Amino acid sequence: MSPDTARPFTVEPWVVREPRLDLDTVGQVESVFALSNGHIGLRGNLDEGEPNAWPGTYLNSFYERRPLPYAEGGYGYPESGQTIINVTNGKLIRLLVEDEPFDLRYGELRRHERVLDLRAGTLTREVEWASPAGRVVAVRSTRMVSLTQRAVAAICYEVEVLDAPALLVVQSELVANEQMPARNDDDPRVEAALTDPLVAEQYRADEAGAILIHHTRRSALRVAAAMDHEVHGPDGVSVSSEASDDIGRTTVITRLQPGQKLRIIKYLAYGWSARRSQPALHDQVRAALAAARYTGWEGLLAEQRQYLDDFWETADVEIDGDAELQQAVRVAVFHVLQAGARAERRAIGAKGLTGEGYDGHTFWDTETFCLPVLSHLAPEAAADALRWRQSILPMAYERAEQLGLSGAAFPWRTIRGHECSGYWPAGTAAFHINADIADAVRRHVAATGDVDFEREVGLELLVATARLWRSLGHHDSAGQFRIDGVTGPDEYTAIVDNNVYTNLMAQQNLRVAADTAARHSRAAGRLGVNAEEMASWRDAAKSMRIPYDEVLGVHPQSEGFTNHQGWDFENTPPEKYPLLLHVPYFDLYRKQVSKQADLVLAIQLRPDAFTTEQMQRNFAYYEAITVRDSSLSACTQAVVAAWTGHLDLAYDYLAEAALVDLNNLAGNTEHGVHIASMAGTWTAVVSGFGGMRLDNGGIAFDPQLPPALSRISFGLKWQGRQLRVEIRPGEAEYRLVSGPPMRLRHHGEPLALADAPQVRPIVACEPVEPVEQPYGRAPNARHPGS
Amino acid sequence: MSPDTARPFTVEPWVVREPRLDLDTVGQVESVFALSNGHIGLRGNLDEGEPNAWPGTYLNSFYERRPLPYAEGGYGYPESGQTIINVTNGKLIRLLVEDEPFDLRYGELRRHERVLDLRAGTLTREVEWASPAGRVVAVRSTRMVSLTQRAVAAICYEVEVLDAPALLVVQSELVANEQMPARNDDDPRVEAALTDPLVAEQYRADEAGAILIHHTRRSALRVAAAMDHEVHGPDGVSVSSEASDDIGRTTVITRLQPGQKLRIIKYLAYGWSARRSQPALHDQVRAALAAARYTGWEGLLAEQRQYLDDFWETADVEIDGDAELQQAVRVAVFHVLQAGARAERRAIGAKGLTGEGYDGHTFWDTETFCLPVLSHLAPEAAADALRWRQSILPMAYERAEQLGLSGAAFPWRTIRGHECSGYWPAGTAAFHINADIADAVRRHVAATGDVDFEREVGLELLVATARLWRSLGHHDSAGQFRIDGVTGPDEYTAIVDNNVYTNLMAQQNLRVAADTAARHSRAAGRLGVNAEEMASWRDAAKSMRIPYDEVLGVHPQSEGFTNHQGWDFENTPPEKYPLLLHVPYFDLYRKQVSKQADLVLAIQLRPDAFTTEQMQRNFAYYEAITVRDSSLSACTQAVVAAWTGHLDLAYDYLAEAALVDLNNLAGNTEHGVHIASMAGTWTAVVSGFGGMRLDNGGIAFDPQLPPALSRISFGLKWQGRQLRVEIRPGEAEYRLVSGPPMRLRHHGEPLALADAPQVRPIVACEPVEPVEQPYGRAPNARHPGS
Repeated sequence: MSPDTARPFTVEPWVVREPRLDLDTVGQVESVFALSNGHIGLRGNLDEGEPNAWPGTYLNSFYERRPLPYAEGGYGYPESGQTIINVTNGKLIRLLVEDEPFDLRYGELRRHERVLDLRAGTLTREVEWASPAGRVVAVRSTRMVSLTQRAVAAICYEVEVLDAPALLVVQSELVANEQMPARNDDDPRVEAALTDPLVAEQYRADEAGAILIHHTRRSALRVAAAMDHEVHGPDGVSVSSEASDDIGRTTVITRLQPGQKLRIIKYLAYGWSARRSQPALHDQVRAALAAARYTGWEGLLAEQRQYLDDFWETADVEIDGDAELQQAVRVAVFHVLQAGARAERRAIGAKGLTGEGYDGHTFWDTETFCLPVLSHLAPEAAADALRWRQSILPMAYERAEQLGLSGAAFPWRTIRGHECSGYWPAGTAAFHINADIADAVRRHVAATGDVDFEREVGLELLVATARLWRSLGHHDSAGQFRIDGVTGPDEYTAIVDNNVYTNLMAQQNLRVAADTAARHSRAAGRLGVNAEEMASWRDAAKSMRIPYDEVLGVHPQSEGFTNHQGWDFENTPPEKYPLLLHVPYFDLYRKQVSKQADLVLAIQLRPDAFTTEQMQRNFAYYEAITVRDSSLSACTQAVVAAWTGHLDLAYDYLAEAALVDLNNLAGNTEHGVHIASMAGTWTAVVSGFGGMRLDNGGIAFDPQLPPALSRISFGLKWQGRQLRVEIRPGEAEYRLVSGPPMRLRHHGEPLALADAPQVRPIVACEPVEPVEQPYGRAPNARHPGS
Repeated sequence: MSPDTARPFTVEPWVVREPRLDLDTVGQVESVFALSNGHIGLRGNLDEGEPNAWPGTYLNSFYERRPLPYAEGGYGYPESGQTIINVTNGKLIRLLVEDEPFDLRYGELRRHERVLDLRAGTLTREVEWASPAGRVVAVRSTRMVSLTQRAVAAICYEVEVLDAPALLVVQSELVANEQMPARNDDDPRVEAALTDPLVAEQYRADEAGAILIHHTRRSALRVAAAMDHEVHGPDGVSVSSEASDDIGRTTVITRLQPGQKLRIIKYLAYGWSARRSQPALHDQVRAALAAARYTGWEGLLAEQRQYLDDFWETADVEIDGDAELQQAVRVAVFHVLQAGARAERRAIGAKGLTGEGYDGHTFWDTETFCLPVLSHLAPEAAADALRWRQSILPMAYERAEQLGLSGAAFPWRTIRGHECSGYWPAGTAAFHINADIADAVRRHVAATGDVDFEREVGLELLVATARLWRSLGHHDSAGQFRIDGVTGPDEYTAIVDNNVYTNLMAQQNLRVAADTAARHSRAAGRLGVNAEEMASWRDAAKSMRIPYDEVLGVHPQSEGFTNHQGWDFENTPPEKYPLLLHVPYFDLYRKQVSKQADLVLAIQLRPDAFTTEQMQRNFAYYEAITVRDSSLSACTQAVVAAWTGHLDLAYDYLAEAALVDLNNLAGNTEHGVHIASMAGTWTAVVSGFGGMRLDNGGIAFDPQLPPALSRISFGLKWQGRQLRVEIRPGEAEYRLVSGPPMRLRHHGEPLALADAPQVRPIVACEPVEPVEQPYGRAPNARHPGS
């Protein structure tokens, strides 16, 4: 896997710096520099709007409906999809310097630098630009999306004239229905549905601001966007505003002398709803704006830093010995936070709010990759994400009924909660998402010990999903419980019987549902659960079929998989990847080639179901056929590589997961960052090298340090405590930063932890046979001596 | 299976009579009364055009391209489809009686009768109608599509005034771009592509005729339609013609006295081409018209009857003891002839040229159901259909290459030869069509002994398909040759490993290709076949995996099938059928429910691969789970029921296959008749009750008479001979109608047949355990005592 573009960023521990402007990487940088609090997302577009790859201002769960066409339809196919749309753009600030528009494509760009500061939570830009007429100005802007005031974003925009006096006109705008790049979609109905999706309802301008209210044509969602400004400049600054259907504009005019500055603080507020009236939304955003102005720019900055200081105290991961990885891991954790921090009972998408990739949809990524991280770093965000799942249960019940099943069938991809998958073999058939949600509940309850959450939220999700599995599977004549005709995580294999990942996750789902219902019998009773039903879950779990290939000594990913034809990797040149763009599904499905970790993910999530030797044999087998055409793969391979003693390989995979967006390894970062890979980065460190596992309600570590690194330190929250673990050569230190004394296990041995840090020796890995990847698909070797 | 509508036809041995007009059955009757020679098809629309269900004038392989949209696309998905279109309608003859348009919905219809005459090859209509003003006329029309002059159709239209003198105006027309009923398709692009598909190129009117030339917008096919008239009436008949872009009109005006008649002979000719120029086509249809006029109406009628007399001499099937079935079997054979007679290197569609169902596409139906019949009744038509397959080999080679395979991958559904399937699990994945084509070659060569055909046509088809199988399958580590990830005939199960039907058919394909290449080694050499390749085909055939369930003692339809969950038939009410309209594919695929014969079809086509006991056990097993949601099922179940001793059941299934359109059993006859079920009707008689099999180059019979019938007689061509077989209670008679002496086998015993008929006793069936169908899915019981 090689980067498709030169890396546009420097390596620094706490910031991401773009030291110069490169038009080839504009889209990637927009995504990496996207600011979000999970509620509002602003892509890292330039203040003046152009040049850009994808203009983007997103609001969580704000989407338009679009037709889903089929050449040949089928019962139960969703008829319409949901697509995230670029809403009213409030980050636009245009500048006119003596009649010359400030546009980096013209004139001379003498300096350009942008910095994403992971501790400040800001994106800062510094530009020195000579207009085609030779006028030199310095522009400095700082942008933030508030983590403390979730409806608010703000920009501080400063202009200084460097050479000679100049007349400046700044137009700070709200723009709805921005012109977008053409979609790669040949269906004119889709294009029509998503072109100019916002219908104007109301506009108003004040002296120094404006408000625009729109609604979407088909999904009937209403959005209000408002801006207000503070202007600081020399005497005689003129400030006026105007508005019309799709534009609000505040115009600031002044003449600056060299050394003088014009400073504009722009406050932005967004509100949206499917139900609230126009006046209600209007008042809501003006109230948010008033609060932001009351807090002031400096106040917002201070709140932001405090929020992040608190976060990083737990969340920081220190990597000594690899500065690039150090930076990447922090960027990853930062973006996971941004995606979930204030999502608050709305969905966390696969791209967060950083781009329009995957139509802005939420998949299993959230529960399997993000939530295990958030449960340990920002537990309320994880709880809210699961509360969102609970809130869409009515749609999941309805979908299950449509499919002839009991319980809940959660959508494979959605924004609002309806199934939006247009290809059922890799959508509806991927029922594992239901067990993934149950697993996120289990992990969250284990990580937080939150019994109220378990009773009020977790239980209903566990019961609804257990009922699904009970109806989806059946006992065969030999008494085994089989789950046939489903698709596991590996999207290069579909509609198979007894996918091991699915069956193991369903097994756990059934067990945990029964156990949880037993612990909360009254609440379970209200859901109609009785002892017979709980017994039927336990029975199904106990007799769950897990196919095993006795000849090869490995688990087939699904029934018969190991009998399939091998893929001809030697004759698959690099340009044929990702395979799904160059090979028909039928060929992928019938051969032994895995897009991504599937059985290996089963090992990660159900280590109790495998012996150490099985883990090793399975890992070696699937390493040889896994091409990592999905960014959900490397982080999982990192974990299991670490567990099976392949520390150098684990390190390579960790770096691949961590660098996917900074180095644009998948070549598509411009459509948004890969939140799951970023979350998986944390998991690769903590579960992989930290060997962290939750078992029997406790927490355990099996720390290992890859030879290339000299120290790894990570923190996490554990049932009301804050814990820090440091892995050094030969030893690991456990420190209770806050909270009551606790017990954990180190390499299987109990360890009581109170105020005093505890240091324990690391048991070195046994040497293992090296494993091989498919021809040409080894990760970039990062470890020394490679 | 119950008829959806009252039967609109009387029961008579050689005609299909509609004794009155019923607007509810208009569509069904239009399909059953469709006239075709395989080249041109005219639906049985009323002369005056309205009322109608679907106006239809079709030309073989004349189609328009249409977009195939996908909610989520994939590599190798076809981007455009091909849809048969209603071309210039030349059967339209409107009548004005004293200012009142002749329209059966107004005035009083005193008599209405239409008769499809299976020996004359004509559709005759007799109407007596009183206009709203009280004028009474008798109209008699006879329509034919010539089996001898393939570009020609003709109509004799007679009007008589019964009560008082009346002024009559007859407008005989050619109409392009007729207004069609709305399609059940929510994609406006498809609607747009298929609305007014013909672009006018040229029009011209003569005194008593006109010509229109059009082309299609996207597929760029050119069509010329021309008409000419002979008018016979009292003196003073005025005849004039006019034409414009989309209409040609000959107007005949006369005043008739009671008892006087106006008689118009309308000659029609069609020509179409993707290559020929406008002048060339123009001349072509005028030449055809001239030839028709030269032959004259009586001449055309005489040729038609002679052609059919010759045909029926061999093809007639006599059924004593069931008049309805007798009629239905003849109708079935007639429609199979109509579909294929003059198709001449163009495709034979699933609906022939009788309707727009399935977009007019050709599937495996042709080779598996139709051609085995045509090879015995109209061998040149079968040979031409296979020559068509040969002609589309370049497209099939290209498709195979796109799919990463060797040899040829024939399209699952097509008109011109390109894959038009928009759902690959039930399209591209149904690779068995390639073996089905090979099997049709094998049967045709066996039936005709045509070595030239084998060398020039058959060999290339066999080699191309054998190469496909060799590359699609692979040897596993145990040395078995496996074909994974394909879909067999049963469309309620998809993307499976080692479908027994597919593997058995591929096995035979590989063997026959090797044997044929050995017989024609020079020709094979020109195709690049060498001894190594032939050996690799034989090896693969020899080690072909055929899964078998030792516990149940049956063949699983595909790997693991018998472990799947049973379908809950008891809780599936009749309105849930066909299941595919009420249940998602995922649920159908993972459970034991068969849309249609799959393993049972394997028994029919590869009886050599099963012991008698296996046949019986398999038949009983699959009877219990086969719902016959496909009309391709009953005929096959009839054959295997007869072979396994279930004679009454075989008789029920034969009737279901035979009556599918006359009784509208599938409820969709209005979209065209079910050619495969009609062909299968013959096969159910001849292979089922006749027990006819081709083995080792010879022909064998195992005759049985179902208790309800007193006699079955059928004829067939066999290697240049004409043979007739009569099954009577307790005995069978074999008669060589023409041709040199031959050998056959009767119940396994050799029998030499020369001039003298041979009578042999029938070995009575052993009594067998009755079999059961899914709840509510038993065929209508027809046998006495049921």
